[in-house]
Amino acid sequence: MPVREGRYAIKLSDAPAVISFASAVGKTEGEGPLAEEFDIRHTTDKICEGTWEMCESRLAEEALEKAFAKCGRTYEDADILFAGDLLNQCVASTFAARGTDIPYAGLFGACSTMALAAALAALCVDCGAVRLAAACASSHFCSAERQFRFPLEYGGQKTPTAQRTVTGAGALLVAKSGKDLPRITRVMLGRIRDQGITDANNMGAAMAPAAACTIIDFLRDTNSSPEDFDLILTGDLGKVGSELLREVMITREQTDISAVHNDCGMMIYDPERQDVCSGGSGCGCSASVVCSHILKKLSRGELHRVLYVATGALMSPTTAQQGENIPAIAHAVEICNI
Amino acid sequence: MPVREGRYAIKLSDAPAVISFASAVGKTEGEGPLAEEFDIRHTTDKICEGTWEMCESRLAEEALEKAFAKCGRTYEDADILFAGDLLNQCVASTFAARGTDIPYAGLFGACSTMALAAALAALCVDCGAVRLAAACASSHFCSAERQFRFPLEYGGQKTPTAQRTVTGAGALLVAKSGKDLPRITRVMLGRIRDQGITDANNMGAAMAPAAACTIIDFLRDTNSSPEDFDLILTGDLGKVGSELLREVMITREQTDISAVHNDCGMMIYDPERQDVCSGGSGCGCSASVVCSHILKKLSRGELHRVLYVATGALMSPTTAQQGENIPAIAHAVEICNI
Repeated sequence: MPVREGRYAIKLSDAPAVISFASAVGKTEGEGPLAEEFDIRHTTDKICEGTWEMCESRLAEEALEKAFAKCGRTYEDADILFAGDLLNQCVASTFAARGTDIPYAGLFGACSTMALAAALAALCVDCGAVRLAAACASSHFCSAERQFRFPLEYGGQKTPTAQRTVTGAGALLVAKSGKDLPRITRVMLGRIRDQGITDANNMGAAMAPAAACTIIDFLRDTNSSPEDFDLILTGDLGKVGSELLREVMITREQTDISAVHNDCGMMIYDPERQDVCSGGSGCGCSASVVCSHILKKLSRGELHRVLYVATGALMSPTTAQQGENIPAIAHAVEICNI
Repeated sequence: MPVREGRYAIKLSDAPAVISFASAVGKTEGEGPLAEEFDIRHTTDKICEGTWEMCESRLAEEALEKAFAKCGRTYEDADILFAGDLLNQCVASTFAARGTDIPYAGLFGACSTMALAAALAALCVDCGAVRLAAACASSHFCSAERQFRFPLEYGGQKTPTAQRTVTGAGALLVAKSGKDLPRITRVMLGRIRDQGITDANNMGAAMAPAAACTIIDFLRDTNSSPEDFDLILTGDLGKVGSELLREVMITREQTDISAVHNDCGMMIYDPERQDVCSGGSGCGCSASVVCSHILKKLSRGELHRVLYVATGALMSPTTAQQGENIPAIAHAVEICNI
């Protein structure tokens, strides 16, 4: 049963299990430091025939298919699917969900989507409303470039603070029972932070305050400190945003998280070898890293208590062109090996 | 506590109460048959200074503000806000939620969003995870025209099957306690239906099969028949989609819903007086009708058992131009006066 803890945290008393997880990635991600961790690695970003949008949708489908296959379940066993992506009207998720016939709740949380999906899936299982819940998120470098920036053919230049949208998807399945599996013990939905950032090439700076807000709320509500965690894992602040987050935590909260903090956007690429500016971003960034490397480590007992905090910049190209700020949000999911 | 009932329905054992609701609409809606029912009626669609996108966001804000004010609660009392809209990256909801500081879950369900938001809000309250949950959805004729069709200045013509995007927003608040209030007794998330429709000017035809699927699932799971309801209320199928739905229900299921069926898209405008083609559509259509006329009737005991089924066409202009089909979904919320 979900129980409120403090002001914003929700404790899942029965700690539902992550009974399966899977990831599918594109070429650059499959050549990065986590290459061996992903279930499906494509040697090209042209995942399938058709458009970039359908390539992204195919990645989400692959992650879902694999997650179900790995635990011997079928789509018919699932009672709910929470999914989302960055594309206009979340079409990557829609077209991936269409073939599953699972009751579907579309989400929009920008790059925070995977944490939002996992949080709601775990909540629905913990309260008994559903038996098996799926969570999925995806992004694709080429569909994102066309939609948010320029067509690839234009050859636009990037600023050093910009991040590369990950071509990838992750999916996980949550159910009540399961022995020796990672468990979702707490969830917390974030509040929107707006620090007046308007530079769409510096999402890290827009998102860092949201991450700080959620981490601070979580530590306070659960009466814990950074040392209580093996890992505080942000979604995709990248290099610039991660430095800002650590700085904000020290100056405003006198809390140093640097010993336990890492960021999916910094883990998925090797900035020495790969031309990725400030690191990875996109819904598929933390989705693919969590649904591979992180959950594997939790399964093997190499990690015991992880606070996964995915951040999202809640802007659109239209609002950016209209000069509006970039509001951001961060959702948290605590995953333990217990 | 939420309990599964049949395959897809979720029964909310404690039947959380809709403790408040409010609506805000634009000029055409404020001149329609439900004019007197809305809390806020603007005499222009230029709700505020700034862009059409911010006008839409302002409508959502107004509905939220009014819903909280009407029951004497503040944003600080709320534990979660589910909201969504049709704009790219759901910016109308983001910018409305920003000022509330309520933990925020962004949704995308196209025109089904209000039912999805209400369903998840009710679920979260019923299971004890939150005490007070808010649900909100909005749309705006001008922001939708620019994004999905043509800029207004272009003066594009409509086909008779097309629907007019409602300028409006609705918000409702759900809490456990509350005497003599409408209660949410069951929820059901829909499954995506794709009947191969590709005509973006005939959303009703794309959405009718999704509505039929959810209504059939709901009646079967709850062992009920249309006569058990005072009203089966679809979101915004409009005239064309509503006729299709009734026909599909008879031919495929030998179930005649016409005696109890109505559609928010047909209720909000007067097709004799107003130039609205097949009726209203948009997230704000059923949101504003349910959060005014319908919930008032439920509060006064003029309606006793309503099955609210909001439908959404899950396409984007990009997928439409790419020749993809228009998948659709319908989410159901049962609201009773008990």
